[in-house]
Amino acid sequence: MQYQDRLDFATELARKAGAFAKTHFQAIDALVIESKGHQDLVSNADKDTETLIRDAINERWPDDGIVGEEHGRKTGTSGYDWVIDPIDGTANFVRGIPQWCVAIACARDGAAVVGVIFEPSSGEMFTASKGGGAFVNGKAMRVAQTGDIGQGSLGIGFSGRAPAMAAATMVAMVIKRGGVFFRNASGALMLAYVAAGRLLGYIEEHMNSWDCVAGLLMIEEAGGTIVKPDPATSLDGGTVVITGGPNMFDEIQEIAKASF
Amino acid sequence: MQYQDRLDFATELARKAGAFAKTHFQAIDALVIESKGHQDLVSNADKDTETLIRDAINERWPDDGIVGEEHGRKTGTSGYDWVIDPIDGTANFVRGIPQWCVAIACARDGAAVVGVIFEPSSGEMFTASKGGGAFVNGKAMRVAQTGDIGQGSLGIGFSGRAPAMAAATMVAMVIKRGGVFFRNASGALMLAYVAAGRLLGYIEEHMNSWDCVAGLLMIEEAGGTIVKPDPATSLDGGTVVITGGPNMFDEIQEIAKASF
Repeated sequence: MQYQDRLDFATELARKAGAFAKTHFQAIDALVIESKGHQDLVSNADKDTETLIRDAINERWPDDGIVGEEHGRKTGTSGYDWVIDPIDGTANFVRGIPQWCVAIACARDGAAVVGVIFEPSSGEMFTASKGGGAFVNGKAMRVAQTGDIGQGSLGIGFSGRAPAMAAATMVAMVIKRGGVFFRNASGALMLAYVAAGRLLGYIEEHMNSWDCVAGLLMIEEAGGTIVKPDPATSLDGGTVVITGGPNMFDEIQEIAKASF
Repeated sequence: MQYQDRLDFATELARKAGAFAKTHFQAIDALVIESKGHQDLVSNADKDTETLIRDAINERWPDDGIVGEEHGRKTGTSGYDWVIDPIDGTANFVRGIPQWCVAIACARDGAAVVGVIFEPSSGEMFTASKGGGAFVNGKAMRVAQTGDIGQGSLGIGFSGRAPAMAAATMVAMVIKRGGVFFRNASGALMLAYVAAGRLLGYIEEHMNSWDCVAGLLMIEEAGGTIVKPDPATSLDGGTVVITGGPNMFDEIQEIAKASF
């Protein structure tokens, strides 16, 4: 497989970073928490975990670029960019809710080729590479095949970056059609759940690349449908996220477009 | 402590039942799943785990009553009733999402005196007894003290038993006021998170007793405010659930009342 070396590297690194972040999580009372904006938090655990990840990438892949949530942009020369969220679900993390994950992706010329999401609390490792399939703890993933919104839940994203009421409109539309909404406050983890067929799909008007690049690749590799991020702009500017199983995607897109 | 024997019994039983249910969760492809109603599922894991719990109660407390989600009502003669949900978050469980829990409560003359919630995936054991405090893995819990809805998330419940749009209206009101909504599809677990100060509060128009009796006791014992369930009707008929930290409760109640 073309990207096996970077996939193996990312998988090992996510496990190491997750274990490191978990030591902070277990000593939660010692966390130093700052606000980056409305309902947008960062802690020393996020920063230190990102440093650990960046150091490892710089050592192994010195010519690759890096886009990270906490420490900004490193421009590379190889055509590859690493896209990292040291702790996705920081609001959960700092309050003691054990749903958070480490997300590491690698893009080539702006398009994802490797994606890894590791949830230390459950020990679940979600992995994917372009053309190489998607796996959870080594088992092949497949998105939900149903076309009936009444047969599952839809992940709904929410951040301070999009108009506030879009999420509420989506929730209303999902319920009206017989569906159920789900929001565990870790976007990357919810995307991994879509890839694993646990959620029917996911909608968020704007996600940063470090929250969604790994998950979107997994969903595609697991047979799902996505709105493709623009390789020219999405790593640095983020993207709209609309995704679901092949038989649910049209309805999910309809809900998204009516809500935004 | 007056209820120490029943608390110890419930704690040990929840751990045993959780371990049993987890063996089913790990063999998820073998589950037999039925629908009890719109978006309301039950599996052989729920039924078998409830049987395990009922057998243990019948042996140790033969004169107590039992109210269980899957196997109905046993009338007792002691004045005590056990209120059990073998797997809260069945929709998560059957789809492989590791957020589900075992909830066991004991009520005396209809009012909770012991409450235990165990989440096997994270290993967290939440416990409370009337007048004896509330604990997570042995550490005292305290509800969130903030009075600012912008400082956290509010759990929103949803079931097919209440008018469909109430949840959507709540989500809209929470966002409008600067809050964030959270719904991980396990009501009992979200109530435990309120007790632990991880969520600001929780609203659901109707919960069955097995989903909420344990959690509501925890919240009270952790210093939170609740709308008290009616001891005469709530064990068999369920109750409205409106709860939060002492400085958030009034606003949460306002949102609830405007949404129902």
